[in-house]
Amino acid sequence: MKKYLMTPGPTTLPEDVLSIMAQPIIHHRTKEYQEINQKVNEGLKYIFSTQNPIFTLAASGTGAMEAAVCNLLSSTDKAIAIIGGKFGERWAELCKAYKVDVESFEVEWGIPLDIDRLRERIETIKPAVCFATLCETSTGMLFDIKGISGLCQKEGVMLVVDAISGLGADPMLTDEWGVDVVISGSQKGLMAPPGLACISMSQKALEKASRSDLPKYYFSVPKAYKAYQKNDTAFTPAITLIRALSCAIERIQKEGLENVIKRHSILASATRAGVEAIGLEVFPKNPSNAVTAVKVPEGIDGKRLTKLMKDGYGVNFAGGQGHLEGKIFRIAHLGYCDKFDVILALSCIEMVLSDMGYPVKKGEAISSAEKILI
Amino acid sequence: MKKYLMTPGPTTLPEDVLSIMAQPIIHHRTKEYQEINQKVNEGLKYIFSTQNPIFTLAASGTGAMEAAVCNLLSSTDKAIAIIGGKFGERWAELCKAYKVDVESFEVEWGIPLDIDRLRERIETIKPAVCFATLCETSTGMLFDIKGISGLCQKEGVMLVVDAISGLGADPMLTDEWGVDVVISGSQKGLMAPPGLACISMSQKALEKASRSDLPKYYFSVPKAYKAYQKNDTAFTPAITLIRALSCAIERIQKEGLENVIKRHSILASATRAGVEAIGLEVFPKNPSNAVTAVKVPEGIDGKRLTKLMKDGYGVNFAGGQGHLEGKIFRIAHLGYCDKFDVILALSCIEMVLSDMGYPVKKGEAISSAEKILI
Repeated sequence: MKKYLMTPGPTTLPEDVLSIMAQPIIHHRTKEYQEINQKVNEGLKYIFSTQNPIFTLAASGTGAMEAAVCNLLSSTDKAIAIIGGKFGERWAELCKAYKVDVESFEVEWGIPLDIDRLRERIETIKPAVCFATLCETSTGMLFDIKGISGLCQKEGVMLVVDAISGLGADPMLTDEWGVDVVISGSQKGLMAPPGLACISMSQKALEKASRSDLPKYYFSVPKAYKAYQKNDTAFTPAITLIRALSCAIERIQKEGLENVIKRHSILASATRAGVEAIGLEVFPKNPSNAVTAVKVPEGIDGKRLTKLMKDGYGVNFAGGQGHLEGKIFRIAHLGYCDKFDVILALSCIEMVLSDMGYPVKKGEAISSAEKILI
Repeated sequence: MKKYLMTPGPTTLPEDVLSIMAQPIIHHRTKEYQEINQKVNEGLKYIFSTQNPIFTLAASGTGAMEAAVCNLLSSTDKAIAIIGGKFGERWAELCKAYKVDVESFEVEWGIPLDIDRLRERIETIKPAVCFATLCETSTGMLFDIKGISGLCQKEGVMLVVDAISGLGADPMLTDEWGVDVVISGSQKGLMAPPGLACISMSQKALEKASRSDLPKYYFSVPKAYKAYQKNDTAFTPAITLIRALSCAIERIQKEGLENVIKRHSILASATRAGVEAIGLEVFPKNPSNAVTAVKVPEGIDGKRLTKLMKDGYGVNFAGGQGHLEGKIFRIAHLGYCDKFDVILALSCIEMVLSDMGYPVKKGEAISSAEKILI
């Protein structure tokens, strides 16, 4: 059976990204590699919409989240973590792992946060750092980072944004919005394999990192920054993955970041129109362009639904996480994705739901999507 | 110019390891990936000569070193780090980063340690953990891990061994020697790209890790172990690199670990015979099978030597690190390496030294090596 990857990471890799990894390995202390490294560093600045340095670590996205926590914070700092899903929870877990006093600012999953309530908490606890999420992958919810950043700047709080799944799909205007630290991972909108984590740091953040007293070594930003200034890395880089990322970045540069985001926006709209046309409901109130979380309709077993899609039709969607397990499924339209990926996803949904006895008028989701995709 | 990689990591990748990375990416929460993961876990046990679980992290080798430090130690523990080169130093740096009281047990670079002096220090400071190195990549020195482990067991000290460059080249009999924790990296004898770090943990080490109070999250062994027991990983694995590693491990299994080590031993002997035949001196007293460090002869500029080899002949050797910069050069015969790799390395050395005015009788290094390679 032909297989299709519609999960929010890893995402499908473009053919040239795949084939570059089959080239003989090169050493990282060569001019040839340094050119690639430089290209990646510059390309990431374009995609992160920042002039800040971006450090790429050999790690999964969580590694860069940990780097943000253990470099930005010191043991006496307070922090606040905005939690509206599984990845927001990770910020609080990371702070607790470093014994940092963190307030969990809970937001109902899939619901926009109340900025006045956030202001009240920030004014009360006076945190040094606020941790937020651009696209909360577990719910498909897009947070208003511009609004949160405005508040943080006014209150003198440093803002760290997990843009792991949102980057390259949703707008993330790091410098324009004044976001100090932005995190991403290679296996999402960046169209590269998993194993690389990126972290952008403002001068203010770098300065704070230089004074942090929390333990770190591999994730040390001062070490990474020192090497970065010499177009080097503190530790042996994942050369193969960096080359893949370089190739993928070139694709984004050629298409143009605005066009890439516009494409994701159209694919997301078409997906939502499609599922709504057959009576399904989108889970989050403010959906991201990266992934659409859809409520499993009454009477349908959600875990069986995604299993049938994968085993019966070869299409790999993600299910729900945490308390949403079995209650939602998630369609990623992220990275190397075009209109026919959305069509096949919707077609698969129509067929499987119909197999499971849910009343679907076949073609209806497709027809609604096509109107937007044209 | 055709290029040759004779560096102790990254090492040349076999063709099938390269080509498997060009296959479409698969999701890690699939049966297909779980089979690969299981194969890697079992294959690593064979190569590490252990029944202990081995956790493979998306990180460079230093990541696994850090995992050993922040999981095995607690804040009130004492540690001792055997330092005979740049990578031994890293153990002490890592302990200090976590504010652990560590004694640096300095050994002259390239010289075997005095086991009685080590015993005296261990009996005096009573450390919980001793950190050692199998092959010290910066000097090409092989340490007597069997002897150190015997001492540690007698003294009730846990032993952690950095076998990053030694594994698969020098014998590393984890269980037979009773070594609690062994570290390796993908880009050395394991013939895979950089970006993966492996750590094996005895039950005693796992038990100590479960009680450690040092901060960690991404490198948490309890998290890794919990996922491992379900044939899963705590965080998104570097899928592409794991597939490459799986392919490389299969090669080692087919050749047989003993044959692989024997091959490395022959290549190392031939390399030493070759350089000695033209009057050069091997740097370490007890050389590893992974890499041969050679003293730069009097009157020759060591940095220019490696530069000419790379730029003039396309052969990438490593130079010296730390206080050995310019004083040694290092020839790796590690991983996907056979007799003609040694021949080309020696031929390059003959030609470049001759170019630089050093008196070389051309073919003499080759002739001595061939006698061993036959």
